[in-house]
Amino acid sequence: MSVRDRVAGIVEARWFQNCVIAVILVNAAVLGLETSLPVVEDHGVLLHRVDMMVLGVFVVELGLRIFAYRGGFFRDPWSWFDLVIVLVALMPASGPFSVLRVLRVLRVLRLLSVVPTLRHVVTGLFKALPGMASISFLVALLLYVAAVMATNLFRASAPQHFGEITTSLFTLFQIMTGDSWGSIARTVMAEQPAAWLFFVAFILASTFIALNLFIAVAVEALEHDKSGRREIEEDDPQQEVLAELRALRTEVAALRREREAA
Amino acid sequence: MSVRDRVAGIVEARWFQNCVIAVILVNAAVLGLETSLPVVEDHGVLLHRVDMMVLGVFVVELGLRIFAYRGGFFRDPWSWFDLVIVLVALMPASGPFSVLRVLRVLRVLRLLSVVPTLRHVVTGLFKALPGMASISFLVALLLYVAAVMATNLFRASAPQHFGEITTSLFTLFQIMTGDSWGSIARTVMAEQPAAWLFFVAFILASTFIALNLFIAVAVEALEHDKSGRREIEEDDPQQEVLAELRALRTEVAALRREREAA
Amino acid sequence: MSVRDRVAGIVEARWFQNCVIAVILVNAAVLGLETSLPVVEDHGVLLHRVDMMVLGVFVVELGLRIFAYRGGFFRDPWSWFDLVIVLVALMPASGPFSVLRVLRVLRVLRLLSVVPTLRHVVTGLFKALPGMASISFLVALLLYVAAVMATNLFRASAPQHFGEITTSLFTLFQIMTGDSWGSIARTVMAEQPAAWLFFVAFILASTFIALNLFIAVAVEALEHDKSGRREIEEDDPQQEVLAELRALRTEVAALRREREAA
Amino acid sequence: MSVRDRVAGIVEARWFQNCVIAVILVNAAVLGLETSLPVVEDHGVLLHRVDMMVLGVFVVELGLRIFAYRGGFFRDPWSWFDLVIVLVALMPASGPFSVLRVLRVLRVLRLLSVVPTLRHVVTGLFKALPGMASISFLVALLLYVAAVMATNLFRASAPQHFGEITTSLFTLFQIMTGDSWGSIARTVMAEQPAAWLFFVAFILASTFIALNLFIAVAVEALEHDKSGRREIEEDDPQQEVLAELRALRTEVAALRREREAA
Repeated sequence: MSVRDRVAGIVEARWFQNCVIAVILVNAAVLGLETSLPVVEDHGVLLHRVDMMVLGVFVVELGLRIFAYRGGFFRDPWSWFDLVIVLVALMPASGPFSVLRVLRVLRVLRLLSVVPTLRHVVTGLFKALPGMASISFLVALLLYVAAVMATNLFRASAPQHFGEITTSLFTLFQIMTGDSWGSIARTVMAEQPAAWLFFVAFILASTFIALNLFIAVAVEALEHDKSGRREIEEDDPQQEVLAELRALRTEVAALRREREAA
Repeated sequence: MSVRDRVAGIVEARWFQNCVIAVILVNAAVLGLETSLPVVEDHGVLLHRVDMMVLGVFVVELGLRIFAYRGGFFRDPWSWFDLVIVLVALMPASGPFSVLRVLRVLRVLRLLSVVPTLRHVVTGLFKALPGMASISFLVALLLYVAAVMATNLFRASAPQHFGEITTSLFTLFQIMTGDSWGSIARTVMAEQPAAWLFFVAFILASTFIALNLFIAVAVEALEHDKSGRREIEEDDPQQEVLAELRALRTEVAALRREREAA
Repeated sequence: MSVRDRVAGIVEARWFQNCVIAVILVNAAVLGLETSLPVVEDHGVLLHRVDMMVLGVFVVELGLRIFAYRGGFFRDPWSWFDLVIVLVALMPASGPFSVLRVLRVLRVLRLLSVVPTLRHVVTGLFKALPGMASISFLVALLLYVAAVMATNLFRASAPQHFGEITTSLFTLFQIMTGDSWGSIARTVMAEQPAAWLFFVAFILASTFIALNLFIAVAVEALEHDKSGRREIEEDDPQQEVLAELRALRTEVAALRREREAA
Repeated sequence: MSVRDRVAGIVEARWFQNCVIAVILVNAAVLGLETSLPVVEDHGVLLHRVDMMVLGVFVVELGLRIFAYRGGFFRDPWSWFDLVIVLVALMPASGPFSVLRVLRVLRVLRLLSVVPTLRHVVTGLFKALPGMASISFLVALLLYVAAVMATNLFRASAPQHFGEITTSLFTLFQIMTGDSWGSIARTVMAEQPAAWLFFVAFILASTFIALNLFIAVAVEALEHDKSGRREIEEDDPQQEVLAELRALRTEVAALRREREAA
């Protein structure tokens, strides 16, 4: 066995995966502790060292995997996910990149790529996205059109909600989720009583579209689930029937041949 | 080829459609920019000219389509949608019609009629409406009856919420969406402690009816989807069985004829 | 034809039903107008007279129906609904019965019993109720247990929300609908930081149970819809197959008889 | 019949079960009354005595059941539920255990284990939990990662919402339920305008995952319900077809034998 195969063997071994999971969990705990200022004051150096060690383990792990799989590594989207997350952590955390320091916590999401059950669930979630694409664009379009209208109509009555198109977009997204739309509407209606038409129409339209979006995703999930099951279940009785029929035809054909032979 | 056919050819060409989509997107950007007062101060004239050019393109496009299809144009509801939207834009934007100026942004919704995928989605959404008609009327009826009751009962305790029947209708619609109904109810209950009966009953009734409305739409969507698939999938095994049976009958009938011939 | 049959004929006639619908709509409009104090000041007497006339029409209609159907009238739950609503209106609207005056508006709900489509929808809604009975009792039990716990735990920290068991029941119902539970929880957590355990657990439990309640109703609706369709659709291919098979058996049996005859 | 069998007979008798239900309901009423301070002042001693009697009845009932079933008692999870609830009530209600006094009300949940219909519903609910395990872990992971990010990003702008990781977890859970997220977001955006990116992304992600969670549970419920029904309904026509086919084969085989005999 070549060195490559042995490394691949190590990387795919259960104990190796479990070690990586343990390291990710340690990293998660450290990142959680680092949010607490008293803890950072007392143990900041220790936490930082653990963080560096974790990063080292990840780099070694990635290195082993690239060595074992070469090109195959770069064809798996989950591997790219791991690579990007570690690279982000390696960037200098200062200047314009200091917000990237915050993104360190995304490393904890590696749990999704290492634990098979979670990877399966996330893949399933991502498969549902394409079916939502059209209706999502429709919702975005509705939001933009409503935002332009609202800014032009209500910028005088409620500038804190509809002063700019960006503010309107946020306010209308908030209204779409149903949060406190009543008080926003009343603020506007205090100056423009007819504004209720706009808000009620917007809420009815977005609720209706959201309902259909949900149904579209549910129907697709149901059909995928069913075609999987149907191939297992329903064809058995059908196949039995077909098998019996074919046996019957053979018998009748045999009967005819015997007759002709006679 | 007549002039009409050539125009129809142009209007149906992919490049023509993509040009129209591009023009709509430019119009969308312009309308978005026009909501920003600083931008309007600096570039207002330019934006207005672009707006006029876009309107010109739409008028020309509509003209070409009417010329190419004549009566056929007026039978397609999407064409009427386009026609109304452009006519609204052509109306003088002053006096009682100034709010129509705000409706200019509805032009962006033309994306729904030009992009085939979106047109398909919207048509699907509109097909779901008739199934909702009865339950929607029931909800409207419940809302009206509750509004009359609430105005008579609570107009003294909470005039800002239930002072007039129109105010009550809006407040009850807000309660139906679940937004901040707790504080509205407490305001009323401060004076009339037994009012909780009304609010809890109203919320239970409207939630129950909304639930059934949703289920009705979902069930209908599922059945449409299934009958479409069933014709493709489930009849194949059935058809196979029927085909085998018929072949078998033919054989047996042949056997009988041979016997009789003997 | 006896007088009874002729009256039944009148009562079931389309024009009679449409008249009753028109009268109900007039009554709805009058009740709506009566909520507006200025309108009542100017036209109060007129509105009251119209109300009396409407009531007279209802009494006559009910009388005709009782006369036409006798006992049959009292077996139809919709007829009882109409009877109770009219009797409520006939009661003296003063003293302890003045709130019943408010219930006059329930007459508008007669639209549900007169218009066939709506009656069908409401009957469908009522059929969904039994399936919800067990889970609804479970929710009520959870609410009661949580209310007793919350009153004992939080009565000192937030008496306006959890002072008495009745107040707690209302507050917890509000939290179940998700309205402003955050601020209620923070008010309590200001004094008892560990209270988040209670609120998060309550929200997770009630959301989970509500989810299953919804699914139970949806699954039942789907199955009812499907068994209705299946009897129409799926048995056709099956019946065809069975028919062919039986024809085949007859042929083979005929073949055997011919042989034996030979 | 041994003493054990006679006791088992008593314990399983309908009248015994109904007595226990009645005692639980009395206990529920007493616990409800004990939350009202005036009532406790007047009748506190009486209520306490009733509580002790109820506890005595439960202890006797449990004793009878353990005696009747011995080991079998400890294999039924519902029996453990009853045992734990009674033991909790027997603990001294003082010092660090005083909060356990509050847990007395959980006795009312015994209704779930005594009434067969409710026990069935709760068992059904618990069966739905495993299917939710993976997606629930995903939601928890998202919550943790977002909490660490939010604490690091927003602790300066809104310490009352994102000051500590524990506060952030609660705030993000509240945002996930959609309650008043708009005002929380605006508080943060007042200092950090770009924060809308975080909130909108978090809301879209958690809503999408919650949607899929719901669909996963619904699909599983539908499939369980269907496989139960399918075994009853759909195989009947299939079985009929198979039966006819076998009968047909027998006839044809008989025909062949006759021929050979001839």
